[in-house]
Amino acid sequence: MATSDTSKPLRGAQARQAVLDAAGDAFLADGLRKTSIESIARAAGVSRPTVYAHFADKEDIFRTIVAKLHDEQFTAMRAATTSDGPVAGRLHAALLARFAPFVALTSSSEHGAELLDENSRVCGDITRASRTRSLRVLEQVLKDGERDGELDLAALDLTAAQAARVVYDAARGAKEDASVTPAAFRRSLQRLVDVLLRGLAR
Amino acid sequence: MATSDTSKPLRGAQARQAVLDAAGDAFLADGLRKTSIESIARAAGVSRPTVYAHFADKEDIFRTIVAKLHDEQFTAMRAATTSDGPVAGRLHAALLARFAPFVALTSSSEHGAELLDENSRVCGDITRASRTRSLRVLEQVLKDGERDGELDLAALDLTAAQAARVVYDAARGAKEDASVTPAAFRRSLQRLVDVLLRGLAR
Repeated sequence: MATSDTSKPLRGAQARQAVLDAAGDAFLADGLRKTSIESIARAAGVSRPTVYAHFADKEDIFRTIVAKLHDEQFTAMRAATTSDGPVAGRLHAALLARFAPFVALTSSSEHGAELLDENSRVCGDITRASRTRSLRVLEQVLKDGERDGELDLAALDLTAAQAARVVYDAARGAKEDASVTPAAFRRSLQRLVDVLLRGLAR
Repeated sequence: MATSDTSKPLRGAQARQAVLDAAGDAFLADGLRKTSIESIARAAGVSRPTVYAHFADKEDIFRTIVAKLHDEQFTAMRAATTSDGPVAGRLHAALLARFAPFVALTSSSEHGAELLDENSRVCGDITRASRTRSLRVLEQVLKDGERDGELDLAALDLTAAQAARVVYDAARGAKEDASVTPAAFRRSLQRLVDVLLRGLAR
């Protein structure tokens, strides 16, 4: 937060951000169901009406946090794919950027399983949109790999778009367990990418 | 059901099975949250006390149905892996047997997304146990493939157990979307297995 002066009430964008920060901490500490708007307002140092001035309800706050996380991960994913080096490394870095932060978050909370369930219930549309734009990025990397002679998708009768879906969904499968740790996810993803890339290689 | 004589009240195993059948239909038609024990009892032709003589609550019925489905899928999976033919085909058939029935069920219900969420909330332990025993079966197929010279896991520095986890989790990732249809899942799984097997091949 930009100020530590607690005598002035927070307003506008500052109040909104304080609510998001407090809610994010509360969701990880207590889960979504047990967290109340009242407790979020208190932790954020704002009034309940101020919370409702910015968000429709608790799920709206949750969705906003999840959407922001997806945006950050997408930015990191794009950065990974536009770096130099062989396609295999870029693909690996991209998938790590896309999925590892979620694993880190949910595994850091004893309410990780509940948060994953709520995420699937409340944020299905966000996840689908995120998949769609991630697929476009992966597709481009795979096309680059084919152009540069690293990959041979034609040998498998796959378009780059189809191969992107294979790679994306498989990587998502490696993290679908609420009990998976960041270290275990990294190992799983490394093995998966090794196998997939060997499968897609010329 | 063994009898169509509705004048005799159902008892014991027959009553239990009638409850499971009626509940399964109701969950697909209305979702878990909207289905009541009352409506299950009515559809099964038994009294509420009879339902409670066999099950603790609605979630207990749901868990019993899901566990049975896992058992059936596992039996089909084992049958697929012990058939003749190359490892690639057996692996594909095994993964199809393991995951396709769930896709067919959830995609047949307009409450598919809710049922998947409830499944993850209520049946996490069943899913984990099912993964563990499925991994053992896949591991054996992969070992066979290595022994027969079809696969080369050592080239990737993978044990059969590690490769089994890669394959299983990747296949699960191909079905994690409540909106996926059985036909789309089959296509996705086929592509995934093609890539993975090419990656694991000698």
